[in-house]
Amino acid sequence: MNVDEILNRKDQLIGQEIVVEGWIRNHRKQKEFGFISFADGTCFSTVQVVYEKTLPSFEEIQKLHIGSSVCIVGTLVKSPKQGQEVEIVAKEITLKGDCPEDYPIQPKRHSVEFLREQAYLRPRTNLFQAVFRIRSVASFAIHTYFQEKGFLYVTTPLITANDGEGAGEMFQVTTLPLSHLPKDEKEKIDYKKDFFGEKVGLTVTGQLEAEAFAHAFKNVYTFGPTFRAENSNTQKHASEFWMIEPEMCFCDLNGLMDIEEDMLKYVVRYVMEHAKEEMQFLDQFVEKGLLDKLNRLLESKFTRITHHDVITLLKKADIKWQFQPEYGQDLATEHEKYLTEYFKGPVFVTDWPKDIKAFYMKQNEDGETVAAVDLEVPGAGELMGGSQREENYEKLFNRMQQLGMKTEGLEWYLNLRKYGGCIHSGFGMGFERLLIYLTGVENIRDVIPFPRTPGNCEF
Amino acid sequence: MNVDEILNRKDQLIGQEIVVEGWIRNHRKQKEFGFISFADGTCFSTVQVVYEKTLPSFEEIQKLHIGSSVCIVGTLVKSPKQGQEVEIVAKEITLKGDCPEDYPIQPKRHSVEFLREQAYLRPRTNLFQAVFRIRSVASFAIHTYFQEKGFLYVTTPLITANDGEGAGEMFQVTTLPLSHLPKDEKEKIDYKKDFFGEKVGLTVTGQLEAEAFAHAFKNVYTFGPTFRAENSNTQKHASEFWMIEPEMCFCDLNGLMDIEEDMLKYVVRYVMEHAKEEMQFLDQFVEKGLLDKLNRLLESKFTRITHHDVITLLKKADIKWQFQPEYGQDLATEHEKYLTEYFKGPVFVTDWPKDIKAFYMKQNEDGETVAAVDLEVPGAGELMGGSQREENYEKLFNRMQQLGMKTEGLEWYLNLRKYGGCIHSGFGMGFERLLIYLTGVENIRDVIPFPRTPGNCEF
Repeated sequence: MNVDEILNRKDQLIGQEIVVEGWIRNHRKQKEFGFISFADGTCFSTVQVVYEKTLPSFEEIQKLHIGSSVCIVGTLVKSPKQGQEVEIVAKEITLKGDCPEDYPIQPKRHSVEFLREQAYLRPRTNLFQAVFRIRSVASFAIHTYFQEKGFLYVTTPLITANDGEGAGEMFQVTTLPLSHLPKDEKEKIDYKKDFFGEKVGLTVTGQLEAEAFAHAFKNVYTFGPTFRAENSNTQKHASEFWMIEPEMCFCDLNGLMDIEEDMLKYVVRYVMEHAKEEMQFLDQFVEKGLLDKLNRLLESKFTRITHHDVITLLKKADIKWQFQPEYGQDLATEHEKYLTEYFKGPVFVTDWPKDIKAFYMKQNEDGETVAAVDLEVPGAGELMGGSQREENYEKLFNRMQQLGMKTEGLEWYLNLRKYGGCIHSGFGMGFERLLIYLTGVENIRDVIPFPRTPGNCEF
Repeated sequence: MNVDEILNRKDQLIGQEIVVEGWIRNHRKQKEFGFISFADGTCFSTVQVVYEKTLPSFEEIQKLHIGSSVCIVGTLVKSPKQGQEVEIVAKEITLKGDCPEDYPIQPKRHSVEFLREQAYLRPRTNLFQAVFRIRSVASFAIHTYFQEKGFLYVTTPLITANDGEGAGEMFQVTTLPLSHLPKDEKEKIDYKKDFFGEKVGLTVTGQLEAEAFAHAFKNVYTFGPTFRAENSNTQKHASEFWMIEPEMCFCDLNGLMDIEEDMLKYVVRYVMEHAKEEMQFLDQFVEKGLLDKLNRLLESKFTRITHHDVITLLKKADIKWQFQPEYGQDLATEHEKYLTEYFKGPVFVTDWPKDIKAFYMKQNEDGETVAAVDLEVPGAGELMGGSQREENYEKLFNRMQQLGMKTEGLEWYLNLRKYGGCIHSGFGMGFERLLIYLTGVENIRDVIPFPRTPGNCEF
């Protein structure tokens, strides 16, 4: 029986004999008794197992190491100890897999840096039990939200010949033998001989392909891996991470913001309901006030304000900025922070200067701005970025020309504007950025099971 | 309003004015009337829109092209025509995005080969509306199944320095400049200068990392992309595809088979319930008898038989085999087919000769076989492959040595057997293979939104 089930059905199970299989998290030995803190990974809680000297194998049991896997037969009883509601009085404890004393995960506080080096063992600790359970619960919350709303889940390709939006550096993917590369008559590398017959890399976004599907299914979303080959060693960047990219036809910028706000609140609420113990643990040990922060988000109405008005507001503020806010310029972290504090909640900043935004964004009539929106969230910074997409073929084509972009290979993307095009919008949310916000964990390396960062491809 | 909602709530909506936005699938013009077959992608059905000559814009409406996006205001009425239950009597039809007459998707039967070249438009056809809706529904069914059973969803890394199980050729991933590769003192390519400081590629499986997580959460599953750089141009192979890889601790081969059978039936049932129209369409136009096939699966009890007994059975059969069945050898397609026909349903073939199976599989006591299991399904062939994993450190280490495998870089995998190891099992299912089975579509290129195959990386 799983510990999860035992704790959920404890009232019916008290007094009954149960069998559990799992691992010893901690082991306290006394002369007449022993106490095993037992976990099987099916829920955050451990359950205490008591064994008495009367057991024939008492001495062998006392030798059991932390980390060992065991099978325990015993009776579920009300715990005499305060705080713990039930415990198991063992009748039989059988060692399944030993764990020598050099086991790196001991019942003490390990640094996250140390645990990163033990990425294959760290999910056995409280912190990572909580974080990776929340990762799983949050990902299901996202799927559930969109599926319930009738959105189609589309898996977009990871290997691509497009360079996406120029959103970032790409990894190259090849089967050419690097030690003897085939060359063409001009002594250039002959990509016709490569696996796909051309030079390809790992995608930085699934947006363009998602737009194609939105023009068939109206509302779609992606949820899959994306890549960045940037050599940036920060707390917020990984080379491989997961993105959610919804695209909606017949949806303008306001409709987009409605969905962003609704989705975020849904996911936060879902995680708080479905990972209660984990969230309480994180609130207590990782980010004090985490639950308050999330509850405030649920209660807030997100502000909507244009980039222009934001700059005006920042300029008026009685603050000595490190970076002077300017019309036409991007926002600095200090500005974002001020903004969410000023409005006491999340802020949608809309209608950005076109020159600092991507080519596919809908050009506003002022000729200066695009119908883009960034969502700034207190304690998270920019959590989502989206826009209405330019649905006018000529405008999009001209913008690509202006920016010196090749249209070759993207004719199909342009054609979406030719064959029954329509107003449409979409956004992207980095899944790990959401997890950092939900868990209070600071480093992206600690919300990805086996993170990939420059110089690190272990496990 | 979405067409999906209109059809679901038609009884309440009849007589009411509604507004819909979507695309013209077909357009029949008569002197006094016009009929638009209207779709918005939110469900498989189209809805008929009738417009009459009394509309002031009648002549303009008659010029609307197939494929155009439109906004329609009208009244929902009971259809006088048999078969169709409701239709919209239009009051106003506004063109949103035109679609010139060179639009490749016309209301006629296009070949799948032609539509593959138009992969960005093909989801607008009936066939691909059905297939990609089912892809989305089936993927949610899989997540729902495992989440309801308490399995943790784990995303395993795609860029890896392991060569997995040697399951297939790998794509190399690099940021080195191929035109001037850095060399070390021995004139070899200096991978220390590559992005991750070593030679890396795209994963062929997430199993090994999933095993690590199973040892912390008991039951886990992956659902993500995997890659094969094999130059095979068959109907069943793609270079990029999605896999589901569950791993369960304290679960033996029989427990594994229980879960495989239960999961498959759950997903089939879920898809039949949640994509009724799509399944009916496929049953009618793609695979006659599809629904019968799936219903038979739901009603069947899967047979469990050892590889040895299978060979005996095949040898006894009064059939002239093209490939002679042999103990110790793999099964040919003709054998698999015979088997599922003989047992009138799916068959688990267990306990395979160790020399034709992977290094990590649990070695049986006979010294000859491993606790592996392939699931053979009528009309699908091998749908899942799994095994109990070898949980004994020495046996696993020795097997790797025997096979000439490097243990370097896989110490952590071996260590799972050292630190509280236990009996555990897992399987892999190719998501597209499942979709081929569910939809009756024959070519893997037609169940992947934008397929990648040798020489093809378009869109």
